[in-house]
Amino acid sequence: MEIPPVVIDRLPLYTRALSTLEEEGRDVVSSQELGTLLGVTPAQIRKDLSYFGRFGKQGRGYNVRKLLDELHHILGLDRQWRMAVIGVGKLGLAILGYEGFGPQGFRIVEAFDADPKRIGQRIENLTIRAANDLEKTLLKNPVDVGIVAVPAGIAQNVIDTLVKCGVRAILSYAPIPARVPPGVYLKRIEPVLALQSMAYYLKNSPRSTAAAARS
Amino acid sequence: MEIPPVVIDRLPLYTRALSTLEEEGRDVVSSQELGTLLGVTPAQIRKDLSYFGRFGKQGRGYNVRKLLDELHHILGLDRQWRMAVIGVGKLGLAILGYEGFGPQGFRIVEAFDADPKRIGQRIENLTIRAANDLEKTLLKNPVDVGIVAVPAGIAQNVIDTLVKCGVRAILSYAPIPARVPPGVYLKRIEPVLALQSMAYYLKNSPRSTAAAARS
Repeated sequence: MEIPPVVIDRLPLYTRALSTLEEEGRDVVSSQELGTLLGVTPAQIRKDLSYFGRFGKQGRGYNVRKLLDELHHILGLDRQWRMAVIGVGKLGLAILGYEGFGPQGFRIVEAFDADPKRIGQRIENLTIRAANDLEKTLLKNPVDVGIVAVPAGIAQNVIDTLVKCGVRAILSYAPIPARVPPGVYLKRIEPVLALQSMAYYLKNSPRSTAAAARS
Repeated sequence: MEIPPVVIDRLPLYTRALSTLEEEGRDVVSSQELGTLLGVTPAQIRKDLSYFGRFGKQGRGYNVRKLLDELHHILGLDRQWRMAVIGVGKLGLAILGYEGFGPQGFRIVEAFDADPKRIGQRIENLTIRAANDLEKTLLKNPVDVGIVAVPAGIAQNVIDTLVKCGVRAILSYAPIPARVPPGVYLKRIEPVLALQSMAYYLKNSPRSTAAAARS
């Protein structure tokens, strides 16, 4: 059965909410409460989870630890994924320093840049390699994920090289509608698009009371 | 008429594709071609645009410049939006240095940090202000958008303060399911969630030929 991509995209939100509940010492949670935490209906949660089998008992809610383990297993979060960062400018530096990846099983194991001043530097326990060595390095030491933090003009080229090296998941920070072949997965981080769609609401909806009171 | 949020989220993609076509000197584009560029059906594009009136003539395609102007106007991209960055760590530095905001009309006019070593520093033509002065500063010099780049533990607090100061659009980089009241718009930038949903596909789908050939 083909599971809708929007369902897959919601599962990480479930695991995050369940992790928080677990940290708070909770054993059981209802689909009602989980729905409130996540801003979706309880029916949606039950439907999403039904794609993967039976969880919880009617009227008893979900066992937090068990559901979390199952979701980790379903999402492949019960293992380590190897990642390479391509582009170590300001953005690449922030990505290398980001502490949110490691605890979730995503480990940056290689970093590449084209700037001769950057190449050879040690940053966050990695030695920055030359962008020219990208293909050679990844063919020898494969990674699961490529994080693209290069300028827009060369991003598609970098993505093509990653695909050629067998990388099947790409997280792109470049503001281009990048292309990948079937069987390769691409997610884009696009703050400008997010700002642009919020601008629509700023422009077209009434001001909040706080803002109105101020003016 | 209430326009579905997913439609609003697609409009920035349309403007980006149209900008590229315009740079290439194109005058007219069909919904077919625009659809191919964006990976959506031509019917979807016609339906999305129909929410905002009539564009293009049957069989003649869209006038690139005119549609772009209309979309800029609809999205509120024909004006400047003032933004404040809260948190000037590695991530905040990358945000301050990002060159993609300005050309789209999004201008960072204030930056705040709690670190005494950071406060008072000049970065990208801004003087970093004390986080303690956030409320005072924004009540005097309002901004349209708050960019939250602080650690997860204090992000909700910062968001609450922004809302109190009349900020109605928040771009949050903090890995928490932040809450905002009705009338305030929040978009989250969440690389870990994107990685987690790709991990599902890496784990559950066959390897590409490139990867298979390698192993």
